[in-house]
Amino acid sequence: MAQNLTQKLLASHLASGELTPGSDITIAVDQILIEDATGTMTAMQFEMLGVDYIAVPLAVMYVDHNVLQIDDKNMQDHHYLRTFSARYGLRYSPAGHGISHYIHLEHFSRPGGVLVGADSHTSTAGALGMFALGAGGLEVAVAMAGYGFDFVCPAVVGVELTGTLGADAEAKDVVLELLRRHGVRGGRGKVFEFHGEGVASLSVSARATICNMIIETGAATAVFPSDEQTLTWLRAQRREDQFVPLAADAGAAYDDDERLDLSGLVPLVALPHSPGNVRPVSELPRTEVVQVCVGSSVNSSYEDLATVAAILKGHTVHPSVQLTVTPGSRQILQTIIASGVYEDLMEAGARMLEPVCGPCVGIGQAPTESAPSLRTFNRNFPGRSGTAEDRVYLCSPSTAAASALEGAIVDASTVSRGGLRPAAPPRPEVHDLHIAGVLPLESRRGIEIERGSNLVPPPQPEPLPANLDARVLIVVGDDISTGDMAPDGAIAMSVWSNIAVCARFMFRRLDPEFHDRALEWGGGIIVGGENYGQGSSREHAALIPLYLGVRVVAARSYARIHRRNLIAAGIVPLVLPSDAHSSTGQRWVIDGLADALAGGSRFVTARVDGDAELELGLDFSPAERAVLLAGGLLAQVRAGGRSVLAGDAVVQADVAVVSQSRSAQSRSSR
Amino acid sequence: MAQNLTQKLLASHLASGELTPGSDITIAVDQILIEDATGTMTAMQFEMLGVDYIAVPLAVMYVDHNVLQIDDKNMQDHHYLRTFSARYGLRYSPAGHGISHYIHLEHFSRPGGVLVGADSHTSTAGALGMFALGAGGLEVAVAMAGYGFDFVCPAVVGVELTGTLGADAEAKDVVLELLRRHGVRGGRGKVFEFHGEGVASLSVSARATICNMIIETGAATAVFPSDEQTLTWLRAQRREDQFVPLAADAGAAYDDDERLDLSGLVPLVALPHSPGNVRPVSELPRTEVVQVCVGSSVNSSYEDLATVAAILKGHTVHPSVQLTVTPGSRQILQTIIASGVYEDLMEAGARMLEPVCGPCVGIGQAPTESAPSLRTFNRNFPGRSGTAEDRVYLCSPSTAAASALEGAIVDASTVSRGGLRPAAPPRPEVHDLHIAGVLPLESRRGIEIERGSNLVPPPQPEPLPANLDARVLIVVGDDISTGDMAPDGAIAMSVWSNIAVCARFMFRRLDPEFHDRALEWGGGIIVGGENYGQGSSREHAALIPLYLGVRVVAARSYARIHRRNLIAAGIVPLVLPSDAHSSTGQRWVIDGLADALAGGSRFVTARVDGDAELELGLDFSPAERAVLLAGGLLAQVRAGGRSVLAGDAVVQADVAVVSQSRSAQSRSSR
Repeated sequence: MAQNLTQKLLASHLASGELTPGSDITIAVDQILIEDATGTMTAMQFEMLGVDYIAVPLAVMYVDHNVLQIDDKNMQDHHYLRTFSARYGLRYSPAGHGISHYIHLEHFSRPGGVLVGADSHTSTAGALGMFALGAGGLEVAVAMAGYGFDFVCPAVVGVELTGTLGADAEAKDVVLELLRRHGVRGGRGKVFEFHGEGVASLSVSARATICNMIIETGAATAVFPSDEQTLTWLRAQRREDQFVPLAADAGAAYDDDERLDLSGLVPLVALPHSPGNVRPVSELPRTEVVQVCVGSSVNSSYEDLATVAAILKGHTVHPSVQLTVTPGSRQILQTIIASGVYEDLMEAGARMLEPVCGPCVGIGQAPTESAPSLRTFNRNFPGRSGTAEDRVYLCSPSTAAASALEGAIVDASTVSRGGLRPAAPPRPEVHDLHIAGVLPLESRRGIEIERGSNLVPPPQPEPLPANLDARVLIVVGDDISTGDMAPDGAIAMSVWSNIAVCARFMFRRLDPEFHDRALEWGGGIIVGGENYGQGSSREHAALIPLYLGVRVVAARSYARIHRRNLIAAGIVPLVLPSDAHSSTGQRWVIDGLADALAGGSRFVTARVDGDAELELGLDFSPAERAVLLAGGLLAQVRAGGRSVLAGDAVVQADVAVVSQSRSAQSRSSR
Repeated sequence: MAQNLTQKLLASHLASGELTPGSDITIAVDQILIEDATGTMTAMQFEMLGVDYIAVPLAVMYVDHNVLQIDDKNMQDHHYLRTFSARYGLRYSPAGHGISHYIHLEHFSRPGGVLVGADSHTSTAGALGMFALGAGGLEVAVAMAGYGFDFVCPAVVGVELTGTLGADAEAKDVVLELLRRHGVRGGRGKVFEFHGEGVASLSVSARATICNMIIETGAATAVFPSDEQTLTWLRAQRREDQFVPLAADAGAAYDDDERLDLSGLVPLVALPHSPGNVRPVSELPRTEVVQVCVGSSVNSSYEDLATVAAILKGHTVHPSVQLTVTPGSRQILQTIIASGVYEDLMEAGARMLEPVCGPCVGIGQAPTESAPSLRTFNRNFPGRSGTAEDRVYLCSPSTAAASALEGAIVDASTVSRGGLRPAAPPRPEVHDLHIAGVLPLESRRGIEIERGSNLVPPPQPEPLPANLDARVLIVVGDDISTGDMAPDGAIAMSVWSNIAVCARFMFRRLDPEFHDRALEWGGGIIVGGENYGQGSSREHAALIPLYLGVRVVAARSYARIHRRNLIAAGIVPLVLPSDAHSSTGQRWVIDGLADALAGGSRFVTARVDGDAELELGLDFSPAERAVLLAGGLLAQVRAGGRSVLAGDAVVQADVAVVSQSRSAQSRSSR
């Protein structure tokens, strides 16, 4: 039977289950991506699994978030992650080397592979024909230990691209258009697979932009075919030997179909405070901005920065605007220097920042309150910029550049210049000098892991209670992001290695008393709306409630990764009926919760304040029920409830000794 | 009579007083330098003076400290300073353009001039034959309003330089040698004037390093002759028309003389926690470092960075070391890019930061506790790195580079390479596109100044009480820096625009209860040791005590700028006898304090706890007594107690309309 590309990728890695949307499946994992912000919890939980080494062919730890180092905590984390990586066999990319997703594309992503990453934007690697999925840290740790990756098989949306992009539209506008169509919930449970004649005109960088931000629709991931563009990319990266052509079979079917005519796209912008709040730039009232930020994992490629430079060259940024530019990686930094793009940006007045995540997660460059800030990033959830009352707009690099000159949001059609498309990138310098290699297992065992005082292993759940008797701690609205639970920003993120301290920030924007109330009440129930837990994969959003004594969340619907994180943490995400009226302080008694889960019930009843009955959905797959009944994923694995993959699916930890970096060699020749 | 250069510079600007060490003098001011950290208080106090425009030929506001923007406060400050500058006629250098001292050298410093700056390292401009002095913000504001600059005439130490620097020694080692000789107190009340045949071999950048860090000896400033090196510098900056040769007259005398043979210098390092704790690198036990930082206002010139690159080229940084490099200005950034230095640094693994003060004041890159961090900076006071229990070592760029490769502190003699001296710098791109110009006065009056909620004008003192009855709030030791009063670091410095919030950090490292006790007691007395208030010019160290109700400090001796800041704030810095034994909680009653000051008494008596008598020194010049009796400098000026300079000394506010940046022109041509 004709298969689409997603089916091929999953089938080739399937260890158990059936490729039917909604079914539990386990797939073998080729590569693991971890970044430092979620990585300290991932690593500490990996250590709790008690294994001696990673059991996947490649795992890379990237330090790209907590790198401002406003006090001593960040560097403690770096030391832990570096020595953890050396001990267990991960490659290690240090602070300042670049954003995980860009470096992974440059050095490691390969067509046909499966990548699982402890970062929601891991989907970026779909640009190179990978099946690339973000997940919570514990699920990633378990996969890294050789158990494969468990998830619910997604539906596949075939997006047929036609035409080519016009003068002022970019890849960012493609994904903004999809967000305009689907909002931040429409993609849930889906993979977006691109095909059609329009695909060929999109470079791997452009595809990366689309695959990165697709997850803001709620989608699991996106994937592009592996074609001439893929070969061009791999050749530039000196990895043409890893090229394999990949595409959907002729006549393959999708679970859903849509079309997108690239030629018809206009520059779009997402208004505060949702990536789904999309409108054409041309329809915006005049909006003066105090800041324009270019960069992040969605738009800091060579092409992105060259596009900005092409518009800025010979001009200077509007005096009331701060423009920052963040290259995606050291390779991109080198390339913009070699090509003159860097100097053009600098001469125009851009602040050239390190290749890190930076302003995208509020780690620096927080704008003034209520003042519009225009960014090429992927999210504009309230407060994510580091400023509580922010007003962040999301756009393409060319719109950002034109707006930086104008001092207000305009698209590039307002700028007289040769055209958006910059010259072809110079051939990049390709080396992995700064990504630490993997030592032989014998040498690794002697490595002492540095554990600073900032690093505190996360709490572990007690077994799931048979019955639940608890009060409602808070009732929140729709589309609450994990950033409201574990906020972004240099200050709040510096304590992500210590759940008890993180906990002080939970729901702070919505209810500053939440933390103290939860401690005082000894736990309780969180009640949410639609798409509860959208956004980042940070499992802190589940570990903090666990620490605070929450064992049940009830929301109308959930975002994929957060829901899985709750389950992994042993917290039951119940489905709240749309007509329920909840309020803080309500007492809910759920008798027979564990039995209902064990027995496969679809519903369970809560008695609210002693009388009213509330029917709550138990919308779980069998595998999810098993995790909850085991008291969370870590307990399940430690109790032997999961098997290391074997047979065809095995991915042996026969890790080649990656050559040490030139450092050691060159040092010895001194 | 033969004059030394310092005497010439002062004589040519003398408005009142006599050039005798220890006498009150007033000099006319040609240029004002302000940076953002101290600048918000400077600007708010300037506004309190009630004048309509600046009354000096040039004043420049540089945003170079609070630029990480970890929340919305920094950008509020920027908006205030930008609109303040536009309103009153200062030029404005925005965030990311560079460090004040480097930009000022590039664009504005000129031989023969007088520069006063609200930053202790303003002395840097002595490299270009200026008399350049750091001061507190209020004193700078008063000078900027046309009242000239009042200070106590310093003694002049003639430092005869002989020989030339050897292979591994640098300008940094010259100033470290002076610190080895004089410690952090030996330079107080002095200007170091360099002369002799060794001077000619030192570039302006090298001289800038020496003039910058000389103030760590407690000196007022340093000055170099204006000679061929000066002309070379000015020519590179397209300012050769501003060259005038300047030197001491033949046979001129100095108040003190010393010699320094450049040829005999070896690489030196200042150990924690004092710039005066200097030893040869070769005598250090093996000291492994986790971090090496290159940059800051003392060592981020083109030559400095090229020296580092020459050593790193072809190698990679030791894997357990984080190396950061911060260029001094956008011009330096452009020059290291054009010359390939940037790429060499990046390829070796350096984290390339923005041209800002950054790690030097703990604004980012805080190291782990207790782990040695090696820095090319000028201060290693405890906690200045942003980490409370830090261990910071200070060194030259070449020592930093060699150590970054080794992973431990070594000097460059251990590295096999062509030699320290890099190739001559490429001719820099010189323009001031990004430094906002000055509008005509009529246009300026309509400018609305943006005042965010982070900006709170400082407290004003009540008139000096006739008698004092107060308790000792704290007793601190020797060499307490202003950083212990208003700490460095991204978090603590973000609130420098609001004294009440700053106050929470006062003496936090020494006594976390200090702030609450001071509030509870409604004020009190601070008792210090020798060299109280060394280091930075931040007047927050005086304004916070004022806010907390402190009207008297008693210390064995004071650092110059802090002492003047106390006086300007209306706080009396008494001299404590060396045999006094004080303790927290003592009650001091000083009857007739105001009368004693007014009457010119040299001493005043405190009754301690009702019986013991303590004789305290009133070591003030007549001008200082007048300020204290007026209730501080602002009150004195507002009451008409100071005259705007007139006659020969007048410096009219006939500010030329500086051409608007190319921005406006180029924008209009779009």
